[in-house]
Amino acid sequence: MRLEILPVPGIGHVTEGDDLAALIGGAAPWLRDGDVLVVTSKIISKAEGRLVDVPADGPDRQAARDEVLASETVRVVASRGPTRIVQTRHGFVMAAAGIDASNVDKTRLVLLPEDPDASARALRAGLRARNGVNVAVIISDTMGRPWRNGLTDVALGVAGMDAIRDHRGEVDPYGNELVLTQMAVVDELAGAGELIKGKCDQMPVAVVRGYLTAGRDDDGDGARVLVRDASMDLFSLGTAEARAAGLAEAAHLPDRPGEVRPDPAVVAAAIASVIDVVAPGTVFTQVVDDDVRAGLVNTVPGWPDRATGLVLCSPPTPVGPVQLVRFGTDVQRLRTALAAHHVPTQLLPPPPATTAAASLAL
Amino acid sequence: MRLEILPVPGIGHVTEGDDLAALIGGAAPWLRDGDVLVVTSKIISKAEGRLVDVPADGPDRQAARDEVLASETVRVVASRGPTRIVQTRHGFVMAAAGIDASNVDKTRLVLLPEDPDASARALRAGLRARNGVNVAVIISDTMGRPWRNGLTDVALGVAGMDAIRDHRGEVDPYGNELVLTQMAVVDELAGAGELIKGKCDQMPVAVVRGYLTAGRDDDGDGARVLVRDASMDLFSLGTAEARAAGLAEAAHLPDRPGEVRPDPAVVAAAIASVIDVVAPGTVFTQVVDDDVRAGLVNTVPGWPDRATGLVLCSPPTPVGPVQLVRFGTDVQRLRTALAAHHVPTQLLPPPPATTAAASLAL
Repeated sequence: MRLEILPVPGIGHVTEGDDLAALIGGAAPWLRDGDVLVVTSKIISKAEGRLVDVPADGPDRQAARDEVLASETVRVVASRGPTRIVQTRHGFVMAAAGIDASNVDKTRLVLLPEDPDASARALRAGLRARNGVNVAVIISDTMGRPWRNGLTDVALGVAGMDAIRDHRGEVDPYGNELVLTQMAVVDELAGAGELIKGKCDQMPVAVVRGYLTAGRDDDGDGARVLVRDASMDLFSLGTAEARAAGLAEAAHLPDRPGEVRPDPAVVAAAIASVIDVVAPGTVFTQVVDDDVRAGLVNTVPGWPDRATGLVLCSPPTPVGPVQLVRFGTDVQRLRTALAAHHVPTQLLPPPPATTAAASLAL
Repeated sequence: MRLEILPVPGIGHVTEGDDLAALIGGAAPWLRDGDVLVVTSKIISKAEGRLVDVPADGPDRQAARDEVLASETVRVVASRGPTRIVQTRHGFVMAAAGIDASNVDKTRLVLLPEDPDASARALRAGLRARNGVNVAVIISDTMGRPWRNGLTDVALGVAGMDAIRDHRGEVDPYGNELVLTQMAVVDELAGAGELIKGKCDQMPVAVVRGYLTAGRDDDGDGARVLVRDASMDLFSLGTAEARAAGLAEAAHLPDRPGEVRPDPAVVAAAIASVIDVVAPGTVFTQVVDDDVRAGLVNTVPGWPDRATGLVLCSPPTPVGPVQLVRFGTDVQRLRTALAAHHVPTQLLPPPPATTAAASLAL
């Protein structure tokens, strides 16, 4: 196996309404079955008229740009200063929703194609009709990524090949079954194409020859299979945004105990984590004796039917109204620390025959 | 410009102490100046003896594996179930610190090379000495990434070329200066190499020909320039981890007002965000009258020299000890909501001649 990556010169500037199959097919009459075309998304967007007019400069330009970004954004994932990492309606997570002001008149912005998989299918069909070749088409764009500097090109859309090469179930020469081996080959192909396409539209199309042995009949499932659902993603929110969400969560702690009794060691760790920031002399006593808890459950009105654990909370003495309020804030600190340890709580009145001023059902 | 990606067959299994320059140089006598070698990190690790013995199976294997992972981990970035995304001492953020059990005996684990840039430099020098060629060397490995399914190969180390191709300052044909144009070309080259290397060590080396016009004298800065410092990263922590950090932060809110007076609208928003979860009848009153605040500053002992804002907090009546404790927890909810809005607070006693039971200096 041996790959070639070939440029497609002579396409020139693309404008709205251009027939890309004619432009690319005419510039590359040498295309063969099984070739993989890597096409910069920007010329797709231009041909499809995915452009918006904005002022060339000034504050109006920024305002117009913000408006366009909002309309292209499904969910803000992270922000810092002027940077906005957002999820687009396609599901891609990109800076500024992939909106681009380069390689276009100063009075226009280029948006991502409406449906890059559909664009890839259409171009593939056009080339088959015009040049009689069965190729695969990848629509590529440039993205940043967490943790690593520098950008790479990846696939927004694909037709005529699978986005992922799946090795699961294969066994290596040592008899180990391969596990983490779903390779996003269309992203690697998009990056390979970028190596020769450059960044100035002079070369918006590259051809990878030798990767596919032949063209296939169907278009495949497209690049949407590369989009990971946010609920499955360990990094669905920026760190600062998730921290703020944790703070907001603390302000809205539900007032009910958990379903299962927490590990006493975890409760002790939560207590230890706040004991230094509460008023000196405050005492938090974890009750782990079943009888005592049962007794409380049976004798105090308003107790949950089944407390799964209990912490008695006693303020320092002497206790006046001001001290009781401060004590309440400290009890809430403990509740929050318990929540951080995944232990939900309910605030309860003090049980009889204790020095506690409050208690928490766990 | 035109690229070729060529496999290097015949290298076979690599074991500790092997001379990789001899193995690769012998298998590819056709290497030329300017060729870019993409070398799977695993054969580097094996040649360098970066292997640890572990039980072939059973719970002991998992325990040994966890121990190795801990020793290769500088910082845990995110976890879910058995998955651990960690930062290695090189600064790379990878699942399981890049530790690999595939393509090796069941009783051994392969660790990342100690210093992949140094490994690349050594291999490059070895090939220059043995074959008389001036090539670039990329050490590659397979990584997952947030937001997109599927893995891609990226560079852990490089010698003989720059990791990043920088277009900043260039101007496109429309006169727009290019901005986001630092391309991580070594990652794109690593991915291009993976397209033919496959996943089973039969083909651990690929050659990209045509990308560099000639070999260069120095090794360059290596792949470490690709490592983004966590402090600069918007995703330095997993979402769940950052949420828990926000909860822990709430449990430890510092007790002091801010330096600058907060926007009253922001304070109002924080109050509104919790008013539905506090005891019915609780009143939070934002004081924005300078004289009142000044008066408080001058008359109440223990006030900060300059309160930058004030919220008076009044509990529902009638007020007994139990209600005051609950009230305190509600005041802490408000403090937490204010913190989520970036407004630090200090708990203060009630000002004289008010119905407040407590107040918060902002």
